[in-house]
Amino acid sequence: MKIAIAGAGAMGSRFGLMLYRSGNDVVLIDQWHDHVETIKKNGLKANYNGQEITEQIPIFYPQEMTSNKTQVELIIVFTKATQLEHMLQAIKPLIGIKTMVLCLLNGLGHEDILQHYVSKKNILLGITMWTAGLEAPGKAKLFGDGEVELQNIDPAGEAGAHRMVNVLKKAGLGGIYSSNVKYSVWRKACVNGTLNGTCTLLDATIGAFGATTAAIPILKAIISEFAAVAQKEGVVLNQKEILDHVAATFDPNGIGMHYPSMHQDLIKNHRLTEIDYINGAVARKGRAYNLPTPYCTFLTELVHAEEQILKAR
Amino acid sequence: MKIAIAGAGAMGSRFGLMLYRSGNDVVLIDQWHDHVETIKKNGLKANYNGQEITEQIPIFYPQEMTSNKTQVELIIVFTKATQLEHMLQAIKPLIGIKTMVLCLLNGLGHEDILQHYVSKKNILLGITMWTAGLEAPGKAKLFGDGEVELQNIDPAGEAGAHRMVNVLKKAGLGGIYSSNVKYSVWRKACVNGTLNGTCTLLDATIGAFGATTAAIPILKAIISEFAAVAQKEGVVLNQKEILDHVAATFDPNGIGMHYPSMHQDLIKNHRLTEIDYINGAVARKGRAYNLPTPYCTFLTELVHAEEQILKAR
Repeated sequence: MKIAIAGAGAMGSRFGLMLYRSGNDVVLIDQWHDHVETIKKNGLKANYNGQEITEQIPIFYPQEMTSNKTQVELIIVFTKATQLEHMLQAIKPLIGIKTMVLCLLNGLGHEDILQHYVSKKNILLGITMWTAGLEAPGKAKLFGDGEVELQNIDPAGEAGAHRMVNVLKKAGLGGIYSSNVKYSVWRKACVNGTLNGTCTLLDATIGAFGATTAAIPILKAIISEFAAVAQKEGVVLNQKEILDHVAATFDPNGIGMHYPSMHQDLIKNHRLTEIDYINGAVARKGRAYNLPTPYCTFLTELVHAEEQILKAR
Repeated sequence: MKIAIAGAGAMGSRFGLMLYRSGNDVVLIDQWHDHVETIKKNGLKANYNGQEITEQIPIFYPQEMTSNKTQVELIIVFTKATQLEHMLQAIKPLIGIKTMVLCLLNGLGHEDILQHYVSKKNILLGITMWTAGLEAPGKAKLFGDGEVELQNIDPAGEAGAHRMVNVLKKAGLGGIYSSNVKYSVWRKACVNGTLNGTCTLLDATIGAFGATTAAIPILKAIISEFAAVAQKEGVVLNQKEILDHVAATFDPNGIGMHYPSMHQDLIKNHRLTEIDYINGAVARKGRAYNLPTPYCTFLTELVHAEEQILKAR
């Protein structure tokens, strides 16, 4: 299958590599100069579960996607949330009438942007448990296991969704057809919405934040705001189960010793965060539904203040 | 007049020194070992508007206030809010039936504690614009100008309040009898409630926080919560005037280049903060009045989380 990976950072490299190695015709698209040039020259390298591998996968800048490029059957978007629209605009020539787009980005509301570029029946939403890292430009570090849960957002897209599940399965990526992917997306957004902004502001690991007496009250307040807004969108969250699910991440034997990705973006690298697609999205939707979301609103304001103070870009 | 300064840090040293130099019989009380021992040995030293001075003012530990000490006419409390009750307990022997207590602490609700130790007609509440610093244990740095605004909390205390205003005036401390000190206390609490917790979490100066696009929305939300709770206590805040008053502190030619005291306490010195007496007090009162105070509650939770993460004591 002809597949484009739009956003070939750590996760995009994992998906591109595994799909390529299972026989698909893959192209990578990314805008990070050093990364693209290194892969153009040396191929995509990876420490793949301890084995050093190299695959000659074609890679392009978004702006290289001129109209002479062939349309693809599947695009998997793996940009930062903030760069999704810009990427879709650039790769428009790849999107044909039959092109399916699978969005595995964290956060909420990406389908609103996707619908400007792809017909609704060709949009697949999903979440993934895979992780990935980059050791250096052009060199991924890929350990562990994972899976992908996805679903069409329009009933007419179901056959296509099942086809893509099979492609992912064949690549060892663990495709699962979900009967309620919106629930999974909201549930995962609760994890990011309770941990990302807080640990970033507190400059704390997930476990260090979780060990404070403030953690559970904060989690409860934020999850209840997510739940109130989700309900307006037809998703009834089980708040108790989600609270336990988030609290389980505090375990120092699990991911408790780690900082969330937003901490890495803002505190370590002084990059703009995705807060507008997590708590900011709930605050925005809350305003539209006339629902109070003060914790999400305040957290979004504080993270934006921190971005400006650190001159994040 | 026989006066005890209960809490002789930077501000207590200023008040003690100026009252002593205008002829009062002053004792200082403090629990910081190095500070007390240095003053016992060398007297209280100060750089007083550029002039190096030393005054032999008696200083004691709170636990030295046994019952053989004479009762005093005025006690000015200048402890950390968190240490007020402990101090009052220790200096009980100084408090007689005529002893007036003047509280100039930042924050809200101190009168509730004072009433356990002093009859209501002898309690004076106030605010002060004076500043003060310590260069070292036993050595204050006292520049600039200020004044003290105070009022009895019980009508029966008015004559005493006027007497104390005159004592402060005579000492050059600028005593002003206020007809509505509760308003001034709430107005000053709004300044601390909008700047202290936020700048501490953001690790930012007042001006750096103020320069962000998030500052005004955050100020508005917090001030409106203070105003709603104040109204239940008979104080009708002018939110627009207070917003302008707080926003004026952002000016880098004023205090905008400085960090608020809470930042110094927590981020610099890993000390517990006074958040429970500022936003925490509004959150607590809000719960009692059944008023939502989510910004104050969340900010208090986040600052407590930061205290625990930094192992503040």
